[in-house]
Amino acid sequence: MRIYEAKDYNEMSRKAANIISAQVIMKPDCVLGLATGSSPIGTYKQLIDWYKKGDLDFAKVRTVNLDEYKGLAGDNDQSYRYFMNVNLFNQINIMPENTHVPNGLAEDDEKECERYDALIDSFGCIDLQLLGLGHNGHIGFNEPAEVFPKGTHCVALTESTITANSRLFEKAEDVPRYAYTMGIQSIMRARKIVVVVSGKGKADIVKKAFFGPVTPEVPASILQLHNDVTLVGDEEALSKIKIS
Amino acid sequence: MRIYEAKDYNEMSRKAANIISAQVIMKPDCVLGLATGSSPIGTYKQLIDWYKKGDLDFAKVRTVNLDEYKGLAGDNDQSYRYFMNVNLFNQINIMPENTHVPNGLAEDDEKECERYDALIDSFGCIDLQLLGLGHNGHIGFNEPAEVFPKGTHCVALTESTITANSRLFEKAEDVPRYAYTMGIQSIMRARKIVVVVSGKGKADIVKKAFFGPVTPEVPASILQLHNDVTLVGDEEALSKIKIS
Amino acid sequence: MRIYEAKDYNEMSRKAANIISAQVIMKPDCVLGLATGSSPIGTYKQLIDWYKKGDLDFAKVRTVNLDEYKGLAGDNDQSYRYFMNVNLFNQINIMPENTHVPNGLAEDDEKECERYDALIDSFGCIDLQLLGLGHNGHIGFNEPAEVFPKGTHCVALTESTITANSRLFEKAEDVPRYAYTMGIQSIMRARKIVVVVSGKGKADIVKKAFFGPVTPEVPASILQLHNDVTLVGDEEALSKIKIS
Amino acid sequence: MRIYEAKDYNEMSRKAANIISAQVIMKPDCVLGLATGSSPIGTYKQLIDWYKKGDLDFAKVRTVNLDEYKGLAGDNDQSYRYFMNVNLFNQINIMPENTHVPNGLAEDDEKECERYDALIDSFGCIDLQLLGLGHNGHIGFNEPAEVFPKGTHCVALTESTITANSRLFEKAEDVPRYAYTMGIQSIMRARKIVVVVSGKGKADIVKKAFFGPVTPEVPASILQLHNDVTLVGDEEALSKIKIS
Repeated sequence: MRIYEAKDYNEMSRKAANIISAQVIMKPDCVLGLATGSSPIGTYKQLIDWYKKGDLDFAKVRTVNLDEYKGLAGDNDQSYRYFMNVNLFNQINIMPENTHVPNGLAEDDEKECERYDALIDSFGCIDLQLLGLGHNGHIGFNEPAEVFPKGTHCVALTESTITANSRLFEKAEDVPRYAYTMGIQSIMRARKIVVVVSGKGKADIVKKAFFGPVTPEVPASILQLHNDVTLVGDEEALSKIKIS
Repeated sequence: MRIYEAKDYNEMSRKAANIISAQVIMKPDCVLGLATGSSPIGTYKQLIDWYKKGDLDFAKVRTVNLDEYKGLAGDNDQSYRYFMNVNLFNQINIMPENTHVPNGLAEDDEKECERYDALIDSFGCIDLQLLGLGHNGHIGFNEPAEVFPKGTHCVALTESTITANSRLFEKAEDVPRYAYTMGIQSIMRARKIVVVVSGKGKADIVKKAFFGPVTPEVPASILQLHNDVTLVGDEEALSKIKIS
Repeated sequence: MRIYEAKDYNEMSRKAANIISAQVIMKPDCVLGLATGSSPIGTYKQLIDWYKKGDLDFAKVRTVNLDEYKGLAGDNDQSYRYFMNVNLFNQINIMPENTHVPNGLAEDDEKECERYDALIDSFGCIDLQLLGLGHNGHIGFNEPAEVFPKGTHCVALTESTITANSRLFEKAEDVPRYAYTMGIQSIMRARKIVVVVSGKGKADIVKKAFFGPVTPEVPASILQLHNDVTLVGDEEALSKIKIS
Repeated sequence: MRIYEAKDYNEMSRKAANIISAQVIMKPDCVLGLATGSSPIGTYKQLIDWYKKGDLDFAKVRTVNLDEYKGLAGDNDQSYRYFMNVNLFNQINIMPENTHVPNGLAEDDEKECERYDALIDSFGCIDLQLLGLGHNGHIGFNEPAEVFPKGTHCVALTESTITANSRLFEKAEDVPRYAYTMGIQSIMRARKIVVVVSGKGKADIVKKAFFGPVTPEVPASILQLHNDVTLVGDEEALSKIKIS
């Protein structure tokens, strides 16, 4: 595992964007695994900036996202598809048909999960997977459990997630209660994994996930078994680990 | 995961030996991770046969073995070092100094484990790891547990293992009670993994390990998360799984 | 450059077949560049033998041959397509549609050459190219010249070749006077190149091609500039070079 | 071959620097083959700029330069060693002992050339070779000739080069008349090659080198036989070729 310590969120974002840029430059038709949330948003901003400066060409890049809320259409501003379009895809020259997010409106959970796994399989493997890290060690919506989930699956959101989300929806019945998420298998089979973490609030889970026991109770701990993981964090997030 | 079904132990051994041969031919200075036991012994016989026919050259190959009994010297015929020397190393042109097995006579467990991990790290990574599969899903001496052991460590042998071994030693005090074993991290970080399984007795654990949940309760189940695993089994061992 | 010295033609063939086998085992959907003639025929015999023993699976392998006589149909026993079918393809489980030889009956030379180059391009690159070596240093039908031919092209055969071939045809007008051949570009862009040479008659050209100046006057001399060439020769063919 | 058209020298430099950056980020201990002259100097400026912004880390990078004037010490401001120190090495965190240029003060030409080739061999191969392009198609000091020079060698400079250089030296006897240069073999064996060209004056040779016949009369034409060449040029330099 490589660890890059950045002094703040901006430097973290730039560092992670550098790795993704390098991947795109070295393999212009690479497959990127992408994530949503506040951690990667700065990375996407930096990529957009470099794209606009002419440094990057996404014309042949393909992407697969980690997860999506069940029940939300791509044009719902709470959906992850919407997030990706607004925060990255619409601002670079990627072909919309080369960007993939689970379909929140799928009628049949099982079929949607099978479709998504088959899609990833058809790519061979993900060249670089970008990940954020949840406070409880979750990656994507792979939450603490007794086993490591393998393929794409549909998960019930925790009450706290549902409550947190509820303020974003006018009607209670619109608040998503389930999500589709890539499993640990597709993540672990990626050739290269980049994890971005920032803020004091992540210091404990960073220590636990990257230096503690490898157990399904801390899903991200599995990353310790991968042979090409880069952890990019700001000083606060890395404050509880020693960097050699 | 690729699965090769062989009709019997000999065909299984030949198939596994073919993969190892290919590795040695394509990268003559490769690093092979090796295992002891009845499962791989036929594979080694086949490699020796091809070596004698001039097909293989081990002059630059380096090897690291999974494990060794604590307390046994390399010339003790129950040691894994002895097993490897007799069943493979002494019959091919590998340089003895390029073959590595944990030192059963190490004075300090912690130091020996650190030394072995540092050795593996110095190789970059293992190009191909050969594995057998225990009835309870163990790989090396990584036994069912609540977490996946990471680095090389010293494990207490189970009573059944101690009892089974006791008939091989004249004095009770010579029977080993501990072993050093590579952890799951080095195994999972290998570029390529080949697992050999044979016999009816392995049919249940094959199904559990390769198609069941990924959990530290079945250490080999972690292999489902690796992106280049080949399972080579005879008909009996594969009788409970469907091969697509 | 690696050089393997074999004691005779059989050992040379087995050694070359070992390298091709390794390629097929490590990458079951690889692209093999193949050659005709007396040099590689023993290599193909060995591959067929191992295929029959269950060591090899060609189900996903794709092949492209170096050359073909213009004017000969694939069922003409003097055509290279016929040679390949009889000496390799019909005896292994390769899919006929995955085997490619220039079309001797093409109506338009330029179009056929473009088609063949586009085909090779569509494969990305050739994983392993097998080559024989002509007495004047030709590879494929790339003969001594003032420049290195790049793409597939149609060449006029030399009088000596035409005369030598004439005894094989009943009517003088059937003797081919032209051939299509892959150029030096596709050969040099292969990831790995294996050259088989045998017999005293090749000793001079082996020395010239692999240790003399790099010049279009000796087309094979270009191979000295490739970063993964293996020369497999018998003692006689290698008798004029020193092997370190 | 990939061709990137830049609108001017700055954009060309930034594009080339992007490729080198990507190489350094993806493989921090890579081997870079470097060149001197006015073409790459902008590329180095950009790399220095990104290094200062924290984007790049050269701590483990190793470099080998193409050539050096015979008779000049590294502290002579006309030497290529001096050029590299001033224009790149002294401004980034590369370890001086990891930077290699032929030794202009070597006593024995043959030994110096052997030493330099052995050094490159010891690296395995060059990961990325940066090249400029001479008006006559030379790369390094490999000038038009009847054969492609293979290894490092000592070349007599042309009268025009000597005359051009003479204004830079106080005494006529100090003007270099020979240079050491890497041969075509080390260049062609590099995994990846990046060529930078700018200005109207290069338009003809660009067309000749990358689209004309492959012949030792135009040394750079050999690059057409490599499987990973990127040509980065400004509009003027690319004005005589069609870009698909």
